[in-house]
Amino acid sequence: MPTILGQNQYGKAENRVVKITRDGATHHIKDLNVSVSLSGDMEEVHYSGSNANVLPTDTTKNTVYAFAKEYGIESAEQFGIHLARHFVTSQEPIHRARIRIEEYAWERIETSDANSKFIGADEVKHSFVRKGQEIRTTQVTFDGEKWEVISGLKDLTVMNSTNSEFWGYIKDKYTTLKEAYDRILATEVSGKWRFNWTDDEQKMPNWEKSYEQVRKHLLQAFAETYSLSLQQTLYQMGARVINNRSEIDEVRFSLPNKHHFLVDLEPFGLKNDNEVYFAADRPYGLIEATILRDGCEARIPVDLTNL
Amino acid sequence: MPTILGQNQYGKAENRVVKITRDGATHHIKDLNVSVSLSGDMEEVHYSGSNANVLPTDTTKNTVYAFAKEYGIESAEQFGIHLARHFVTSQEPIHRARIRIEEYAWERIETSDANSKFIGADEVKHSFVRKGQEIRTTQVTFDGEKWEVISGLKDLTVMNSTNSEFWGYIKDKYTTLKEAYDRILATEVSGKWRFNWTDDEQKMPNWEKSYEQVRKHLLQAFAETYSLSLQQTLYQMGARVINNRSEIDEVRFSLPNKHHFLVDLEPFGLKNDNEVYFAADRPYGLIEATILRDGCEARIPVDLTNL
Amino acid sequence: MPTILGQNQYGKAENRVVKITRDGATHHIKDLNVSVSLSGDMEEVHYSGSNANVLPTDTTKNTVYAFAKEYGIESAEQFGIHLARHFVTSQEPIHRARIRIEEYAWERIETSDANSKFIGADEVKHSFVRKGQEIRTTQVTFDGEKWEVISGLKDLTVMNSTNSEFWGYIKDKYTTLKEAYDRILATEVSGKWRFNWTDDEQKMPNWEKSYEQVRKHLLQAFAETYSLSLQQTLYQMGARVINNRSEIDEVRFSLPNKHHFLVDLEPFGLKNDNEVYFAADRPYGLIEATILRDGCEARIPVDLTNL
Amino acid sequence: MPTILGQNQYGKAENRVVKITRDGATHHIKDLNVSVSLSGDMEEVHYSGSNANVLPTDTTKNTVYAFAKEYGIESAEQFGIHLARHFVTSQEPIHRARIRIEEYAWERIETSDANSKFIGADEVKHSFVRKGQEIRTTQVTFDGEKWEVISGLKDLTVMNSTNSEFWGYIKDKYTTLKEAYDRILATEVSGKWRFNWTDDEQKMPNWEKSYEQVRKHLLQAFAETYSLSLQQTLYQMGARVINNRSEIDEVRFSLPNKHHFLVDLEPFGLKNDNEVYFAADRPYGLIEATILRDGCEARIPVDLTNL
Repeated sequence: MPTILGQNQYGKAENRVVKITRDGATHHIKDLNVSVSLSGDMEEVHYSGSNANVLPTDTTKNTVYAFAKEYGIESAEQFGIHLARHFVTSQEPIHRARIRIEEYAWERIETSDANSKFIGADEVKHSFVRKGQEIRTTQVTFDGEKWEVISGLKDLTVMNSTNSEFWGYIKDKYTTLKEAYDRILATEVSGKWRFNWTDDEQKMPNWEKSYEQVRKHLLQAFAETYSLSLQQTLYQMGARVINNRSEIDEVRFSLPNKHHFLVDLEPFGLKNDNEVYFAADRPYGLIEATILRDGCEARIPVDLTNL
Repeated sequence: MPTILGQNQYGKAENRVVKITRDGATHHIKDLNVSVSLSGDMEEVHYSGSNANVLPTDTTKNTVYAFAKEYGIESAEQFGIHLARHFVTSQEPIHRARIRIEEYAWERIETSDANSKFIGADEVKHSFVRKGQEIRTTQVTFDGEKWEVISGLKDLTVMNSTNSEFWGYIKDKYTTLKEAYDRILATEVSGKWRFNWTDDEQKMPNWEKSYEQVRKHLLQAFAETYSLSLQQTLYQMGARVINNRSEIDEVRFSLPNKHHFLVDLEPFGLKNDNEVYFAADRPYGLIEATILRDGCEARIPVDLTNL
Repeated sequence: MPTILGQNQYGKAENRVVKITRDGATHHIKDLNVSVSLSGDMEEVHYSGSNANVLPTDTTKNTVYAFAKEYGIESAEQFGIHLARHFVTSQEPIHRARIRIEEYAWERIETSDANSKFIGADEVKHSFVRKGQEIRTTQVTFDGEKWEVISGLKDLTVMNSTNSEFWGYIKDKYTTLKEAYDRILATEVSGKWRFNWTDDEQKMPNWEKSYEQVRKHLLQAFAETYSLSLQQTLYQMGARVINNRSEIDEVRFSLPNKHHFLVDLEPFGLKNDNEVYFAADRPYGLIEATILRDGCEARIPVDLTNL
Repeated sequence: MPTILGQNQYGKAENRVVKITRDGATHHIKDLNVSVSLSGDMEEVHYSGSNANVLPTDTTKNTVYAFAKEYGIESAEQFGIHLARHFVTSQEPIHRARIRIEEYAWERIETSDANSKFIGADEVKHSFVRKGQEIRTTQVTFDGEKWEVISGLKDLTVMNSTNSEFWGYIKDKYTTLKEAYDRILATEVSGKWRFNWTDDEQKMPNWEKSYEQVRKHLLQAFAETYSLSLQQTLYQMGARVINNRSEIDEVRFSLPNKHHFLVDLEPFGLKNDNEVYFAADRPYGLIEATILRDGCEARIPVDLTNL
């Protein structure tokens, strides 16, 4: 046969699981979108259609829901670790499991004072509004021996309304852009960071605390960097994370340059003193790079986005 | 001619304008998506293609940007009022202008203490992260005499993890649903509310404060209502707004019932004590209704969504 | 009580039903997205939460699937008529039913000649590829006496690469647009048309043939109109439908002007002879109008889109 | 410095270019979305913000439009080759260029016979309707010596209404799925295929013909495979391409299993004889694999989708 099978993986994608934990009248939510992907001895199902080595994707879905009950959802990372270990250790033909999770954050609805007095504050600790800012992500991969955990976020839109310049670039025959000494810098952050936890023998990071700290550092680096290029800002964001979080060895960002063009108001006899901008959709600059702890190997895939 | 022209309107949709206001080193953002729609003596442009009565949509776009400079953007409503008045009063063939605006909220990025000391707190008052929760909306219509302002919001996702029941409904031959005495109630709020300000002689509402208060009341009503049906919750949300905000006479909500189905874990020997839910996409219940101040006329269109 | 209930409706939205009809080895598909919306004596469910008059949305979903078996799906319109009649006539508190349907078209995959000989042509009459062009829509409303059927389509993108001009418009102080004597005219057609069939006593239109003919006429009118404005093209599209289809009394279109801007290549020493265009996203012109058979009343809602 | 820069790339994404070619009154369209990504000596822009080695993303945008005029758009692949060669050979610091292109297909609107007679058939050869089925893709990478061309498609939805089974799989404690001996098999094809053309010395493939043939073969393989698993169908689709197209050495597919669940109509006293299905959204199976010409190396990245 002139064709052969290469890398392959299968599973159930986008299992939406919501877990409510009741601490008396106070409820807690975890809201996840879990995608399972399994690899192993899968030649026959491709060549002949024999499913003898195939754990159905429907079963992987059931396992997600059952584990939400059996183990709870302490964090997306910890939940992914339970799932990945299960698939690899319980089924001989499955050699590798990769669990990808999106997490949606919720915050409590504050109730009215008058009403709280009446019904008691505890009684309304079950009402939530979706935070709706970034989506938190993680990817846990297990091959039976080593772990790889790459967490991240996406859809976090940020803007500096000053302290950004762009000049001193190459000018070729197709260059018409004018240099800018005070521009808006805006982007929608997609980032992934890889933990150096790889082995059950190592002490596991505090996944929840790590996420909050990484998020804080990358936001602060964005805000505090006086930017001569989006690349420089990106590098500072990654370096700040590596330098402050010893559990992380590698960060990759994909940052669209969400252009805000100063509108030309002169035809109307008006001066636009960096006040009125047109927020453009397409095209957009796209800046992508990896920042590594010195001496570490890059393992996060280059493309975080499809374009 | 056997065919005639009926209602028609035209304009430029989705003008994305960002306005930065600089108060020393402290910047403020307004981020709007403005859609202009004009009507009037437009028979000829439809019948013969004569554009003699047509103000180009490109001009309406320019006007949006010029007005952001000339008038600033105090609120989406006030900005829409400036625009609508301009189109109707400046061009004789234009008899009605409708301005629709979406507003995206931003909040400041908190910078690090160490850095703030170093560079001075003021220097980082130009960094923002998009709030990313609901989208605020308004629609301002002017016919040369009377104003109609309908504000609202969309994409505000909320959930009560208890205090919701559903039983006592009609059972016909196609009914299989089991009654529920403790279910999750979740929805993505789309709402519109109409102000009773219609005339330049009246005192104008405080648009910004009104929005914050309406948002608070509808969230609190959602949280505090012990629900026997989503219809009941919807009515309470609208009544709370009308009863607390004298500037508003009418509210309409479109509330999808975002079903969270309790997963059957019995096949795995597990008991699901209202803990593990499957968050479903489609189909979904869709509950829509208008709540009116007694004696007022309904004017908000019935369909807020396309389905 | 200072607040009262206004218009209200409820039901299950977006029931995705696929119906396979087997004519020997030749299969036929109908692929629909069905949304049910019911109104009637629903005060109590809003005021007190009593569901005594409420047929559950889950039951309306079940009815959609059961009716696909009981009646088949001859056309989206006919299917909607079966459903609407059922809800209004079988439940006393329900006075009005509105069924909205989206239909997705499929075409057959042509199989290879060699293979067809081998397995017999009939054996591969069960393979389909989704056509993926416009989405067909219908809305059937029944109040127990009269029918209203409004069919339509959306997402049909068309372009004329010449025979379009735009000049002779109003120039005010905000006008910078240059007149165009040969431009691209492109739009994404959203249209709805209302049938004059309103009564069971009347002969029902042939829904499938009517759709094909309306689609053909509006496409041809778009192609064949030498356009001085998008409004003129829109009117011709509607008039062509009314003039050719006696079953239809009213048409409404919402046509975004999908701008294709001629790129300025002069800075690069190149002449752009109406060859190279930038296809812009936002903002866009939005042209909307109703065309009526003379003497008929307009009943299609003014806003087909949310902006 | 404890952090270092890893892989990085930058450019302008999603340049929407429409090219009209006029062959007398007959016009031809190419409608592309072009994303440029450049790599090279870019350390300084990340470390210090110096843009001395940076060709602005705005310039890469201008180049796309200028090249549409200078070279025309014979095919997406050929256009990408022109662009990639230019960036790498014209700027010393740029060592690698990757051009990604999406192409949207259009077909002609057929005009009415009566009208054609009147105005002459040629006069309406400038009207198009977007085909709206799959999106065609290509990715051209050049490092100054070797070429890599990976073309593909996405959003091509297909369905077999019979000739699909699924049984004989592993049953563990979380398995509840019942075996199926006649099910619907539906998927939305995402595929990429790599050409063995890598050198200017080699004869270049006919990109347009190759695309049409690959598309035909993968559709026919989907239709003609009696399927015991989606993996088996996927493999047949890839093998058919490799076996029929000598210019292609590697194919990768990402195939969501778009579940169509047979609706249980028994509660309503009805028998569902493989007629009425619920088309589910999430979760879905996701089957991904590479098929290689024997002896060739896999180079297409494993993840075609973000989940």
